[in-house]
Amino acid sequence: MAIPDAQIFPHATSEAAKTVERHQEPQDLVFYAGWFCPFVQRAWISLEEKRIPYQYKEVNPYKKEPHFLAMNPKGLVPAVEYQGKALYESLILCEFFEDAYPSHKPNLLPSEPADRALTRMWLDHISKTFIPAFHRLLQAQDVEKQNEALQDLAENIKGPFFNGEFGLVDVAIAPWIVRDFILQEHRGFKRGDVSPVWEAYAERIEKRDSVVNTSSLREHLAVIFGRYLRDEAQSEVAKATRAGKVIP
Amino acid sequence: MAIPDAQIFPHATSEAAKTVERHQEPQDLVFYAGWFCPFVQRAWISLEEKRIPYQYKEVNPYKKEPHFLAMNPKGLVPAVEYQGKALYESLILCEFFEDAYPSHKPNLLPSEPADRALTRMWLDHISKTFIPAFHRLLQAQDVEKQNEALQDLAENIKGPFFNGEFGLVDVAIAPWIVRDFILQEHRGFKRGDVSPVWEAYAERIEKRDSVVNTSSLREHLAVIFGRYLRDEAQSEVAKATRAGKVIP
Repeated sequence: MAIPDAQIFPHATSEAAKTVERHQEPQDLVFYAGWFCPFVQRAWISLEEKRIPYQYKEVNPYKKEPHFLAMNPKGLVPAVEYQGKALYESLILCEFFEDAYPSHKPNLLPSEPADRALTRMWLDHISKTFIPAFHRLLQAQDVEKQNEALQDLAENIKGPFFNGEFGLVDVAIAPWIVRDFILQEHRGFKRGDVSPVWEAYAERIEKRDSVVNTSSLREHLAVIFGRYLRDEAQSEVAKATRAGKVIP
Repeated sequence: MAIPDAQIFPHATSEAAKTVERHQEPQDLVFYAGWFCPFVQRAWISLEEKRIPYQYKEVNPYKKEPHFLAMNPKGLVPAVEYQGKALYESLILCEFFEDAYPSHKPNLLPSEPADRALTRMWLDHISKTFIPAFHRLLQAQDVEKQNEALQDLAENIKGPFFNGEFGLVDVAIAPWIVRDFILQEHRGFKRGDVSPVWEAYAERIEKRDSVVNTSSLREHLAVIFGRYLRDEAQSEVAKATRAGKVIP
């Protein structure tokens, strides 16, 4: 059995707690979430942007309810229960919200087919390049590896980030912008070192309502990140990063 | 500079050569391909299934044309040039064909949003689990690792494979079914050992017109696979498999 990660604070706090409170009524769409998880936050930002009616259910990763496991045997969050079906994978959920709620604006994917494809290429870049670089920097133990990872991260921050229109590429990267304080405090990361444009962009992203309203207190995230900084975390992402393998 | 893989036969053969011949006229959509590449074959099967007008251009991986590199600096195939835009990543191209040619049947993605999401979850499973298992079996050098990989592969062959309706999950796996002869000849793989259902399915898939019409002679593929069987191949997939890393 895996060693559990840091005692995880049991529920959302700050603005995210108010958002949870507003989404307790039963709805056709049930959103299974963990307040701390950046992949969860992607789907959650999309739900908030589009004002989709949903019921929020916090899943304790170490005490998963039998109903949740019956529906979703892998026990992964974020997950959605919709018309008796269990759906998961953060970006697949974001695409599902676009498909299932076409009248809910904003559209987070462009309508023009080639632009949709370009957006998906950027999402693929974020998954395969940016997030692994973020985690390598977070978990690297010696200074030389940290410096390498720091350079890697700065080089991999690129994309068609929002200019007026907020879209799925912004959704996909926002949870890591919200969490970059940990790299700033412990790994010498500076937004301005990437570029002044990135710094301004990151500030706009973290002030956006849907991002603020799905974000909890940093002090609770910091406890969880402590194990990553010591490279002791046992989440699937942490283990994959340590082994140099694909992030599942 | 990477050591080039086996001298690659320069063009498609057999039924695939006839398909190439039928797609030489200029079209709005230019399809940049390598006849031997399973990721290329996915996009190619979709184009053939949907009878989308396209111009086929073979890209020699060791002598890439300046026009192709100017458009697509990473030089990846499959790639599509459409309205001056360079699009790539096999499954993103398949989704693009659905979006850009809605009147071209069959629809390879279901129309119902939750079913689309389930299809994408299976595509994700194929990318993250089935293909890596196929390559581990192909490249494993000692018998013990080969046996492990053989079991892994059999366990990871699952999905909502076609029952009457051929769809994107079938497209995504077909190129590896066409290539499993190499595992049968050299790694003790037997379709019937997976299940009789799988064996019957694989036989249906390899007889499907779009699959036949995008397949070249096995003898040319076998030359390329020789380097994989000795674990000497230098493609990105081969290197990632050797290092236990994400297949890019």
